[in-house]
Amino acid sequence: MGLPLLAAMCCALLASAARPHCAAAAKARHFKWEISNMFWSPDCEEKVVIGINGQFPGPTIRARAGDTIHVELKNALHTEGVVIHWHGIRQIGTPWMDGTAAISQCAINPEETFTYRFVVDKPGTYFYHGHYGMQRAAGLYGSLIVDVAEGEEEPFKYDGELNLLLSDWYHESIHTQMVALSSKPFRWIGEPQSLLINGRGQFNCSMAAAHTPGATQCAAVNRQCAPVVLPVQPNKTYRLRVASTTSLASLNLAIGNHKMTVVEADGNNVDPFAVNDIDIYSGDSYSVLLTTDQDPSSNYWVSVGVRGRPPRTAPALAVLNYRPNRASKLPALAPPATPAWDDYEHSKAFTYRIRARAGTPPPPATADRRIELLNTQNRMDGGTRWSINNVSMVLPATPYLGSLKLGLKSALAAARPAETFSRGYDVRQPPTNPNTTAGDNVYVLAHNATVDVVLQNANALARNVSETHPWHLHGHDFWVLGYGEGAYRGDAADEARLNLRDPPLRNTAVIFPYGWTALRFVADNPGVWAFHCHIEPHLHMGMGVVFAEAVDRVGKVPKEAVSCGATASALMNGDHL
Amino acid sequence: MGLPLLAAMCCALLASAARPHCAAAAKARHFKWEISNMFWSPDCEEKVVIGINGQFPGPTIRARAGDTIHVELKNALHTEGVVIHWHGIRQIGTPWMDGTAAISQCAINPEETFTYRFVVDKPGTYFYHGHYGMQRAAGLYGSLIVDVAEGEEEPFKYDGELNLLLSDWYHESIHTQMVALSSKPFRWIGEPQSLLINGRGQFNCSMAAAHTPGATQCAAVNRQCAPVVLPVQPNKTYRLRVASTTSLASLNLAIGNHKMTVVEADGNNVDPFAVNDIDIYSGDSYSVLLTTDQDPSSNYWVSVGVRGRPPRTAPALAVLNYRPNRASKLPALAPPATPAWDDYEHSKAFTYRIRARAGTPPPPATADRRIELLNTQNRMDGGTRWSINNVSMVLPATPYLGSLKLGLKSALAAARPAETFSRGYDVRQPPTNPNTTAGDNVYVLAHNATVDVVLQNANALARNVSETHPWHLHGHDFWVLGYGEGAYRGDAADEARLNLRDPPLRNTAVIFPYGWTALRFVADNPGVWAFHCHIEPHLHMGMGVVFAEAVDRVGKVPKEAVSCGATASALMNGDHL
Repeated sequence: MGLPLLAAMCCALLASAARPHCAAAAKARHFKWEISNMFWSPDCEEKVVIGINGQFPGPTIRARAGDTIHVELKNALHTEGVVIHWHGIRQIGTPWMDGTAAISQCAINPEETFTYRFVVDKPGTYFYHGHYGMQRAAGLYGSLIVDVAEGEEEPFKYDGELNLLLSDWYHESIHTQMVALSSKPFRWIGEPQSLLINGRGQFNCSMAAAHTPGATQCAAVNRQCAPVVLPVQPNKTYRLRVASTTSLASLNLAIGNHKMTVVEADGNNVDPFAVNDIDIYSGDSYSVLLTTDQDPSSNYWVSVGVRGRPPRTAPALAVLNYRPNRASKLPALAPPATPAWDDYEHSKAFTYRIRARAGTPPPPATADRRIELLNTQNRMDGGTRWSINNVSMVLPATPYLGSLKLGLKSALAAARPAETFSRGYDVRQPPTNPNTTAGDNVYVLAHNATVDVVLQNANALARNVSETHPWHLHGHDFWVLGYGEGAYRGDAADEARLNLRDPPLRNTAVIFPYGWTALRFVADNPGVWAFHCHIEPHLHMGMGVVFAEAVDRVGKVPKEAVSCGATASALMNGDHL
Repeated sequence: MGLPLLAAMCCALLASAARPHCAAAAKARHFKWEISNMFWSPDCEEKVVIGINGQFPGPTIRARAGDTIHVELKNALHTEGVVIHWHGIRQIGTPWMDGTAAISQCAINPEETFTYRFVVDKPGTYFYHGHYGMQRAAGLYGSLIVDVAEGEEEPFKYDGELNLLLSDWYHESIHTQMVALSSKPFRWIGEPQSLLINGRGQFNCSMAAAHTPGATQCAAVNRQCAPVVLPVQPNKTYRLRVASTTSLASLNLAIGNHKMTVVEADGNNVDPFAVNDIDIYSGDSYSVLLTTDQDPSSNYWVSVGVRGRPPRTAPALAVLNYRPNRASKLPALAPPATPAWDDYEHSKAFTYRIRARAGTPPPPATADRRIELLNTQNRMDGGTRWSINNVSMVLPATPYLGSLKLGLKSALAAARPAETFSRGYDVRQPPTNPNTTAGDNVYVLAHNATVDVVLQNANALARNVSETHPWHLHGHDFWVLGYGEGAYRGDAADEARLNLRDPPLRNTAVIFPYGWTALRFVADNPGVWAFHCHIEPHLHMGMGVVFAEAVDRVGKVPKEAVSCGATASALMNGDHL
């Protein structure tokens, strides 16, 4: 038996017994990136995007579980800092590599280079994106796919793989968008002009106009905005990976005449279930199995439409291309209609259906602490903000990971954020007192505490408006214990809604209009972690909190990660990390 | 006699005998600024500008010679660094307060505060502006006016003062402009959409359409773009201060039926001379005396037009409002026509006419060193650049002032830039080898050396194109010794063109198409100083050099000025400034 094969076998044994994965087979994977603004035509209209190595979206990173990723990143923007967050990667032991400006690291200045080094410890469908200002909405994102470690196998079978990274696209620059959102009075940025699949869409025209009443057929489109083609062979099973990094839009994806079986969510396998379409919120990722069992003489449309907001953005289309048909052969059928935007029952049915696959670790039976977070829209200094327990998050100049590690007095506001909200708050009505204040919203978590978080949705400032918010946690997966309608009371009825048997592990969970969502996680990863609505304008408007978790147990933070602001001053004055 | 009066009298005596001015009367002037992007309509079209405290242009700073200015500046931009350069202030002894990113300090990061503290040692008409990326072109500028010290008098008399800060304005954001200029292949950004006077212009219409064939009368304009009104009383003399902070345009200013007497240039008094119009290049400032000796029943147009480039931008207008006429009373006369854009003889006649006022210190009779700088347009890596002696300036991540002070090895490229260029270079033709390379272009100057700089213009990449470039020196005034046509040879004929008797002291000097300009200065201000074309896109494209002057004699650089990049690393590792 050769040594590699032996190593792979050992690795398989080890891996099935206990993660992390076999170090013997793990690789270091090196990437060199340069980030710059560039002209691009994501939806056939030329604008400026943030690209990586001249590409939009950024290059796909592909690795195996246990590998170490090294990304040597040069910021070639002219006057803007940049960071990259590796969405869904928990950064166990490396919280300084989480790529969250003002939380885990200083923004990388123009002309500077910072090297991200981290282990991808768990197979799954991930992505990466900018996490400074609204740079994600400027196109700074790409796919990150982690295969099982060498010698391991997925618990489901497929013949091939396809990958779709979904996003939305505004014609106004993010600078203008940020000015609008911060204006007093507030100016809303409106709906995105286009939806993109792998960075491609078509503005103001349709590739399927023949099937779409009122639509204009797209003329010849250039390669930057040509529809994505997914080549398949008939009668095979494909793993279709789908992730959403939209700025605003909640999405639904359907494929003409094809069913899909959901097998993975956010890097965790789920109890397989078949659906006609999937909902996917910003920050979510899924894998679905797709069997090419339809008439092989035709191609089929993959259609992506808007959920939860009156749709002012046309669906995005891709082509499922049954070979040997030409890719350009127009599907015989119209693109599948995605559900009505306000069919929340459809959305809930999909979301509630997601359960952990057998073998997924169950949650601890009880929690040590419960943090209840009321999500409200408020006013502040003449502008409009989102608040959590009536505090709107404003990030500091110095990243928390450095300032808390050094114990800088300036690091935290004196006030501790509230753990709960008034039971008398009427979540069905606009806030009676809409005034809010800015704050740092840092919750200090004890090492290994089991923490329950209840996210409570409410009415926005306008009557009869409550939006869907996908909340994303850094540094952890959480168990999604359950969902409820109206105000959470924590009573027996609410408890009865919680699923402690097979709740799915995820890193992003949605709160539905006027509803609540209960999560549980174990604070077993020392670091400082953002927890926030993944809708980019909502985060910009303060919709998030920070978890400072056992910071005294964080290892030696590399100086280059925190070499700015108060941390830099302290280090120059002789403090040590 | 009261103490203040005594102090003022002492001060006057001292000041007439020897500058710097009497410390007894000098004041500290404190300002608190917040810099942010905001919506504004400089030319009646709403765009995003960089404002200060919600104003555009930024607030005017007014002080007396000898005062200390304190500007506590908070960067409230979302993802962009910022610095402010105090154009014309020599920063004697405070080179770290010059506000030049990557040269004198680190860009101030978002949410951070940096306090500029410096003495304005010399009366005159100055301005301040952003000096990072192309932020000046985004509207980050304002006036800085220094009066004579208390008890002193100007050598010319006037009854009142007026101030005009001239600029140009593009509808595309500076981000898009920078991407275009850095694109491969290069994309030219075209001419500005509007000229602005004190931040106000009118796009696509004229306030004087009745007098302007083909022009559309402006409809009601809002206060952000209403023409500037200069209220005057008949038969008085006014000091009109004029400064230009244009991104691209060279300008000419004329006032209907009024002559002007030039008395100051760049903070130095000049031998007075009367003109019908003045040329003003980006980086220049002037004071002219204006006597209101015309028909008092009328108002008059102040007109600002484009020089040196085919004019695709309409003139900007202001109203000289003879009180008690209403400001809205339209002038009877058409706006004065500025000279033909390509009437270079007119421009040269004006520029050559500027001589030092009697009493101005004369230049040293000889120089210790001569640096000849050939200005060419070149290609680099598929893009277009400007080069000096065939090196195109690319600024580093770490400011030179810190890295040179600490003697960091990484601070400088090994190669020293050339002191001269080939006598065989044909300045009348496009470069035979248009390829250039990037470099740091740092010239190391000995303390108190008298340095001559000869700026040599040449043909650009296209045939029969040679542009006008206004070169601006930081940290110094220079004597403008003379101008010549064609290639500088340094022979007797060229020497004969130099004026050692009464050359004007300035901080900005122009090179005319295919010509040369000779400057002299004394390297008596230890620091690191930029010397560059003041046209914003040209600087972005590499048209500059750096003078590192007696860096060993620079005082203690404040850590907060250089707390980034390699300097921050060195300081955190125990190096001392």
